Amino acid sequence: MDTEEFRIRGKEMVDYICSYLDTIRNRRVFPGVEPGFVHGKVPDNPPIEGEPWDDIFADVENIIMPGVTHWQSPRMHAYYPALTSYPSMLAEMLTNAINCLGFTWASSPACTELEMIVTNWLGKMIGLPNEFLHNKDSNGGGVIQTTASESTLISLLSGRSVTLQRYSNLQPDVPLFEIHSKLVAYCSDQAHSSVEKAALIGLVTLRYVESDAEYSMSGSKLLEAVKEDREKGLIPFWVCTTLGTTGCCSFDDLQGIANVCQQEQLWCHVDAAYAGCSFICPEFRKWLKGVDKIDSIAFNPSKWLMVHFDCTAMWVRNSSALHCAFNVNPLYLTHEFSGLAIDYMHWQIPLSKRFRSLKLWFVMRNYGVKGLQEHIRKGVMLAEKFETLVKSDPRFEVPARRHLGLVVFCLKGNIKTTEALLKRINSRGKIHCVPANLKGKYVIRFCIASPRTTVQDIESDWKEIVDVTNDLLSGNCSARAPEGNNDSFGSSLLLSNTPLSPTIVNGSFAALHQEGKVLDEFSKIISIPRDNFAMRKRVRGILMSGKKFSLDSRLDLFQALYTDKKLRTVKDIKESRKQCDPESLQFSEESTPVTSPKGSPLKKNTCEKCGHSTYGYKIKNSKNK
Amino acid sequence: MDTEEFRIRGKEMVDYICSYLDTIRNRRVFPGVEPGFVHGKVPDNPPIEGEPWDDIFADVENIIMPGVTHWQSPRMHAYYPALTSYPSMLAEMLTNAINCLGFTWASSPACTELEMIVTNWLGKMIGLPNEFLHNKDSNGGGVIQTTASESTLISLLSGRSVTLQRYSNLQPDVPLFEIHSKLVAYCSDQAHSSVEKAALIGLVTLRYVESDAEYSMSGSKLLEAVKEDREKGLIPFWVCTTLGTTGCCSFDDLQGIANVCQQEQLWCHVDAAYAGCSFICPEFRKWLKGVDKIDSIAFNPSKWLMVHFDCTAMWVRNSSALHCAFNVNPLYLTHEFSGLAIDYMHWQIPLSKRFRSLKLWFVMRNYGVKGLQEHIRKGVMLAEKFETLVKSDPRFEVPARRHLGLVVFCLKGNIKTTEALLKRINSRGKIHCVPANLKGKYVIRFCIASPRTTVQDIESDWKEIVDVTNDLLSGNCSARAPEGNNDSFGSSLLLSNTPLSPTIVNGSFAALHQEGKVLDEFSKIISIPRDNFAMRKRVRGILMSGKKFSLDSRLDLFQALYTDKKLRTVKDIKESRKQCDPESLQFSEESTPVTSPKGSPLKKNTCEKCGHSTYGYKIKNSKNK
Repeated sequence: MDTEEFRIRGKEMVDYICSYLDTIRNRRVFPGVEPGFVHGKVPDNPPIEGEPWDDIFADVENIIMPGVTHWQSPRMHAYYPALTSYPSMLAEMLTNAINCLGFTWASSPACTELEMIVTNWLGKMIGLPNEFLHNKDSNGGGVIQTTASESTLISLLSGRSVTLQRYSNLQPDVPLFEIHSKLVAYCSDQAHSSVEKAALIGLVTLRYVESDAEYSMSGSKLLEAVKEDREKGLIPFWVCTTLGTTGCCSFDDLQGIANVCQQEQLWCHVDAAYAGCSFICPEFRKWLKGVDKIDSIAFNPSKWLMVHFDCTAMWVRNSSALHCAFNVNPLYLTHEFSGLAIDYMHWQIPLSKRFRSLKLWFVMRNYGVKGLQEHIRKGVMLAEKFETLVKSDPRFEVPARRHLGLVVFCLKGNIKTTEALLKRINSRGKIHCVPANLKGKYVIRFCIASPRTTVQDIESDWKEIVDVTNDLLSGNCSARAPEGNNDSFGSSLLLSNTPLSPTIVNGSFAALHQEGKVLDEFSKIISIPRDNFAMRKRVRGILMSGKKFSLDSRLDLFQALYTDKKLRTVKDIKESRKQCDPESLQFSEESTPVTSPKGSPLKKNTCEKCGHSTYGYKIKNSKNK
Repeated sequence: MDTEEFRIRGKEMVDYICSYLDTIRNRRVFPGVEPGFVHGKVPDNPPIEGEPWDDIFADVENIIMPGVTHWQSPRMHAYYPALTSYPSMLAEMLTNAINCLGFTWASSPACTELEMIVTNWLGKMIGLPNEFLHNKDSNGGGVIQTTASESTLISLLSGRSVTLQRYSNLQPDVPLFEIHSKLVAYCSDQAHSSVEKAALIGLVTLRYVESDAEYSMSGSKLLEAVKEDREKGLIPFWVCTTLGTTGCCSFDDLQGIANVCQQEQLWCHVDAAYAGCSFICPEFRKWLKGVDKIDSIAFNPSKWLMVHFDCTAMWVRNSSALHCAFNVNPLYLTHEFSGLAIDYMHWQIPLSKRFRSLKLWFVMRNYGVKGLQEHIRKGVMLAEKFETLVKSDPRFEVPARRHLGLVVFCLKGNIKTTEALLKRINSRGKIHCVPANLKGKYVIRFCIASPRTTVQDIESDWKEIVDVTNDLLSGNCSARAPEGNNDSFGSSLLLSNTPLSPTIVNGSFAALHQEGKVLDEFSKIISIPRDNFAMRKRVRGILMSGKKFSLDSRLDLFQALYTDKKLRTVKDIKESRKQCDPESLQFSEESTPVTSPKGSPLKKNTCEKCGHSTYGYKIKNSKNK
């Protein structure tokens, strides 16, 4: 494609985007496709000769769009928002044409300098203290990271480095690894799964502090946990405070937590991924009280501030702590001064970075502070409206206080009915929501996101929910509550809070469809060789463990169902579960070795109680931690 | 901005991009700006009211472009390339309008499924074995990561998890942290700095294996190191093989290394960030011999394959190893089967991901395999042409064998002259190169990148180099070799290989300008209060340590020069260095406490030998490791 063709195709694309966004309300928000739907439509190999643009572009509507979850739709109420906007898209068009990398100041000076300026602007907009801004009197500053998850990890790693340094000074004779093994990080039991991932990467113990009835972690509960751990000889070092939890947008008590952190010398990180956007409005800044004592904070303009993904703004009080985490010999940076130019490669995990400040700059300038505040306030107003509608129907309850743009609700009574309601709603595809587990209560999250959403949309979305509820409760539709005792709903939640046991974070297909339907559909489209012993073993393991699984696992299950006629229905699975008590399985080893698909020798193991066989290494050996 | 305005502005932006890229040859490739140049041009605060688009867009040429390093210029020969292309930009326009997140299959099914398909296509294009593709018979597959650095980290973390599991099975009584403390990772002394960063995050020891005369790590050298470490009771676990090093595009002996890894049960990762792009041409695939034995491999289509940043393709043999690294209870995934749908959140560090497969898909389809092969071969041909030109001038040498599109060269004799040559070239801004340190030899890297580069460009670029050389060697220009004994050139290299001592990875301003000029320029524009004692301490520390510093440090230095009249010139600095021997500094503590800008009490320390004073905590205490 030469410049003249791009000039034409680019303008066509602009028109297509205008049309896509203007008519997005008419599209099914959650796609009605099954796993593998793209597979059959696309060749197995790349084309040898280049294809004309028309053929490529036609596949956008033929192949891509039918499988897109339309996050910009006014009827998208799942997860938290990820909004785009016209000035943001214009900026990125330019960014992608320039395509410079910003690892050091010199690699593209404008890239680094604009990032320093826009993180200062944004920091001022949410009222951050001067220590978090780039200026001559500060050791801190802002940086644009890829995601809030990454910011949490970077913060934890920085806290780890600082603490390891401090303790190895205090106890020079204790090996570093002994100190490391005693480190404990803390977060609320409502914190995002990325905190757990960060702890896993940093190889530190993560302790969940119980939240109160408002799903909020208090300073006193944190202090209790810290003291207990100190008594055990452990080393508390880092706390993640969540402002706006994923489950119900609750807020930890930052003021109380920050005081404990200061007193106990813990790194205090604030994860305000979604709610941080609202802090541009002074009336929502009450939750930031205590921010003057924290060490790092991050939130996502890419969620609610009209800057498209990825764009996470992170600020630190002391940038040399980042250098400590990422530099081999950080000694010389102990007293770093953020001057006029910095090398952002020392502030992040990857070496390279995109010119992401441009979209933040364009959006802040085109909307202005007022325009962005109006956008936030409108979202909150619509959520209030939706909350009123839910509360007006005596069949429903709102079991957690609404904050900002998120309303959680459920049917009174059996949680199974709420689960069935949500699955039915999602399978119809008119609106899209995901569930959350609030201390054992199954709730539907309804998040107001798009700037295109109107009061009329909220009313018609509520009507959709009422219609499905009426059908469901009258027994007139096929989507009744799932049969049998299905207490595994927690497994199917992307938004599950981390301390579910066993902990699985997943929000996939199985969360959104009736179990029976999934089984039927999958068994139609999947086939694997009957002699795939590794697969059989896996499926048997799933059935016997009684644990909760991610989509990957479920697919295996369905594949196995297809090849194992003994397990053909949901009922069969449930019965097989009853037979095997995972805690008391006894295996005998048979002497008939078979061969796995990879060629390594496998043994057949049979449960002495129920006769189920598995192939592979002894179960005991595979049960490592 | 409403849809109709975007329709107009978007098309204007398309025209602007066409014009930018078509006339990019006329722009100064490396900007002639000083740190802080944006600062004075932009308000300190965001606008309250939204600004009209015209004002915003005007600032692109007024503020942004003068500070951009033009990576798409045919005269950009620095670093490795980061190319964009029209089909890639078209894809991203669409991606940013859809702006869906792809953490799970359900969060946007097309996003996950297309990523599986394009990583299969690309894997086949470079001849990867079936185990690395998504299909029913494989446990592996491809994923698009943000950067090669991130892929290296993910690989190391996966190797760490797998090894910790294996050893804790073998030695159930040994604490996990004791096993962890013994882990050793390996790479060549020519490996990229991201390997060191990964080891630092993973808290494992990294051992550099000496490369041979061709800058290549051999299997036998690796095996020697591994055996030595095993004898010490350590646990070798992970090896990074570099195919196409940053310094001179040399290649480790993958075949030999992979054999050692298999024999010694080490995770074998291949970092082919740049060179991997060339493997789409069969004639360059010889370096991949041994790939059938590796565990993971990554390269950047965002470098040389016309897909703009970010886009790193990574493949793993066994995806369950990734799950082990990122999942808290990965037991249930031990035998994972990559089916028709996967949840990519388990394959990466962040939760969310962009719809990056679209740009890879558009580019592969629009160019076709043949078109991309032609593009690679043209770059190599132009590098051969440039190499011939260098070799035709007896004043120059090419001290390392040319591979692919990278030529390294230097002036025969004093390396200081080559350094002066490069700085002079960059300060003129017509072409842009960065240096590398090849085992103590200072070389200029000349990388052919842009598809816009022609034979005529190469000839005129060479003429620029010859012109500057003529001036330099005749003593007619101000850019003579730096005065005095400056042996710190290694400090100023972004592309420095990691085992420089002390290790600093930096490629900023100071690398690209004469030291004197930097000092003069900076001292004009920078001012800090005279009573900034923390800063003074920092500067004295820099001077006394004799170490090498990043840009941040240098800025401090210049700031201090401005406020401390005793140290006003380069000569003064050098003299002050002579006075203080960092190894034998003796400090006495004076009793006059002063106050730091932060309000914490500081003490004045004075070197007993040279009388230099520093303010702060005792030097001894700050010399922690």
